[in-house]
Amino acid sequence: MTQTLASFDTLLARYAELLVRTGVNLQPGGKVRVTAPVEATALARLVARAAYRAGATDVRVVYDDPHLALTLFEEGSDEAVGFVPEWAAREREAMVADGYASIAIVGEDPALLSGVDPTRIATRSRLMAQAMRRVSEATGAFAVNWTVAAMATPAWAARVYPDLPTEDAVARLWQDIFSVTRADLPDPVAAWAEHTARLERLTDYLNRQQYAALHLSSELGTDLTVGLAQNHVWQGGAETAQNGVRAVPNLPTDEVFTAPHRDRVDGWAVASKPLSARGQLIEGIRVRFEAGRVAEFSAQSGEATLRQLIETDDGAARLGEVALVPASAPVARTAALFFNTLFDENAASHIALGRCYPTNVQGGTDPAVLDAAGGNAGSLIHVDWMIGTPRTDVDGITQTGERVPLMRAGEWVLSLD
Amino acid sequence: MTQTLASFDTLLARYAELLVRTGVNLQPGGKVRVTAPVEATALARLVARAAYRAGATDVRVVYDDPHLALTLFEEGSDEAVGFVPEWAAREREAMVADGYASIAIVGEDPALLSGVDPTRIATRSRLMAQAMRRVSEATGAFAVNWTVAAMATPAWAARVYPDLPTEDAVARLWQDIFSVTRADLPDPVAAWAEHTARLERLTDYLNRQQYAALHLSSELGTDLTVGLAQNHVWQGGAETAQNGVRAVPNLPTDEVFTAPHRDRVDGWAVASKPLSARGQLIEGIRVRFEAGRVAEFSAQSGEATLRQLIETDDGAARLGEVALVPASAPVARTAALFFNTLFDENAASHIALGRCYPTNVQGGTDPAVLDAAGGNAGSLIHVDWMIGTPRTDVDGITQTGERVPLMRAGEWVLSLD
Ligand SMILES: [Zn+2]
Ligand SMILES: [Zn+2]
Ligand SMILES: [Zn+2]
Ligand SMILES: [Zn+2]
Repeated sequence: MTQTLASFDTLLARYAELLVRTGVNLQPGGKVRVTAPVEATALARLVARAAYRAGATDVRVVYDDPHLALTLFEEGSDEAVGFVPEWAAREREAMVADGYASIAIVGEDPALLSGVDPTRIATRSRLMAQAMRRVSEATGAFAVNWTVAAMATPAWAARVYPDLPTEDAVARLWQDIFSVTRADLPDPVAAWAEHTARLERLTDYLNRQQYAALHLSSELGTDLTVGLAQNHVWQGGAETAQNGVRAVPNLPTDEVFTAPHRDRVDGWAVASKPLSARGQLIEGIRVRFEAGRVAEFSAQSGEATLRQLIETDDGAARLGEVALVPASAPVARTAALFFNTLFDENAASHIALGRCYPTNVQGGTDPAVLDAAGGNAGSLIHVDWMIGTPRTDVDGITQTGERVPLMRAGEWVLSLD
Repeated sequence: MTQTLASFDTLLARYAELLVRTGVNLQPGGKVRVTAPVEATALARLVARAAYRAGATDVRVVYDDPHLALTLFEEGSDEAVGFVPEWAAREREAMVADGYASIAIVGEDPALLSGVDPTRIATRSRLMAQAMRRVSEATGAFAVNWTVAAMATPAWAARVYPDLPTEDAVARLWQDIFSVTRADLPDPVAAWAEHTARLERLTDYLNRQQYAALHLSSELGTDLTVGLAQNHVWQGGAETAQNGVRAVPNLPTDEVFTAPHRDRVDGWAVASKPLSARGQLIEGIRVRFEAGRVAEFSAQSGEATLRQLIETDDGAARLGEVALVPASAPVARTAALFFNTLFDENAASHIALGRCYPTNVQGGTDPAVLDAAGGNAGSLIHVDWMIGTPRTDVDGITQTGERVPLMRAGEWVLSLD
């Protein structure tokens, strides 16, 4: 048997095209903003090429260098850490208003800021989140088509595969990325159409059930009842933005997710994976919820950062998302720990502290409707963390209190096909 | 004798500090914008570090990837080439208004766009220049302290040292950069203070003379009379910005320069070096001026680009700068051809097509004063090109028609020390 392996360059070009065609589904004449790590020049240029070939009118690439944030925290005065100019978000806001699609390429070192005082990071994160509020709201409400995807930077790869020489770690991580995003298939765009159709059958089914709550349990100690917002909407896979373009917000994506009720979450949530947040690793998270709010919490490491997150505002101590992911999802099958939410959240069922997506409630882009339904609006943060394991059970609890098995031992027990 | 050579990292850190302290002379509490090639991460991070250590309140680094422009010209529709959003310069304008100093690090491939139709480049350059007009005006009037310096990118180094393997070419070009900017001296900041004081004695002398015109001649055929604007001001070395900060706009800098009279330039100017403009090389330029305006021109290569430049607007066919540089200047002593104006213009006397610096006329930041003095205001371009050689003679022509030798065989014949 002869096997022809596509070269890295071919795969990278195919991946770039996937981000443009499936990720944001760029329309002829469309405009797109690309943010990418400063190491992503090869990918960013290929994305620009694919976008122009798809008929883009404008492609704006913004390179991000997280080391500059490290330098700020290490060397900057308190005044510098606390300085976010009034115009910081103006260009982003103009782009949202002009209908720019957004492709965000992530790949940061998950522990870059591990030596930094979490208070400094929290101060700046809050200011940045406040400055970016209008952009975040527009993104959260899917005003324009956007997608998040990854690239294998050396710093990230070295965390995922610490035993490999960096070059091999990078190659291995790229292999993972291409595999979980189906970029290594002959026709990735077609494969994604099939995958998102499958997720749509699942969300359609769950939307018809309108469970009052979910119950999640795991061998690690998770024993959590998550009440769901009224008229909640399950989402997953592809999503139609307010501009009418159907896009896929995350590549990869294997979750279906919806909005919890902000006052109806009770019990223990125990993390099944470390969480990289704000450049720091938080490990061994245990949180107890009471009437929707965090009542107690601890972490084996990074507890100060966890505290800063939870204490951001009232909404930060409540849930804004519950998401179900089978233990057999492609990311989970790699058996790697990515320390990157885009990947790890698609390997395990998870919850998010902070604001919900208004699209997870019927009519929820109207703040009054979202509020009345019990959605957790208005927090400055939205931080997913993983609680699912290959032994997690999930039940749906109906409006009449019946328990319906949804997942057993980490796998869906529904049959929709 | 023992010699300890500073390591590359030490030199790079010293260079970064030089850009902050001498280049923009950043004040405690100051803010600074840094633009840098995407390959400049190491230098940009060191600049940020030096700026925070100097007490910066904000450091904004913007990475530039000229390959994205190449991709646009290769793959973009005419609509895309012609699209510059209304808000393109808004953030830059906000930063100028907020008093941000600017450090621009250059190092682009001088012939990156050599395969591109010059008409496409001209279309976009014009739109960009129009969008950036207010920023260019503020920069030209030295509203805030700014500096331009270089880094050795692989693509640029390979053009300068085409016979060396890229790695060696980069190392060699860095050596040149460190040497001509005095970063390899034990105390570069002190060396610059001495150098700028020397240039100041020269500009003070020339300002007292108020020559009516200069005459430049060379063995290549330059035979050019450049009338000077009334109440012209010679500048060179350090400059006091409108915000009161004394900075050095170019590192290296060995020129003294002033504003020609827009209607009083006559004769032949013949280039002594190739010119890299808009990503294309223009070689063998010959231009004849008549009453200030280009009357005929030719180039051995890149003539279409030269034509696009000259035809930008009326001011683009007139001179906005005449600059004198001795043949023994540090850049000239490297004997390399850099295909980069920051370097090549500091190795040879030169002229610039397009708008003048308003600061080169007394009171010239007032447009009426600048106009009355004969300054060439209002062009969208300012493009320096080199005409000086080691055999160039320069005379000052007094108001009464006397000829005073200023340079002979490329060297100053004044003695000011
Ligand atoms: Zn999620
Ligand atoms: Zn989430
Ligand atoms: Zn000059
Ligand atoms: Zn100039």
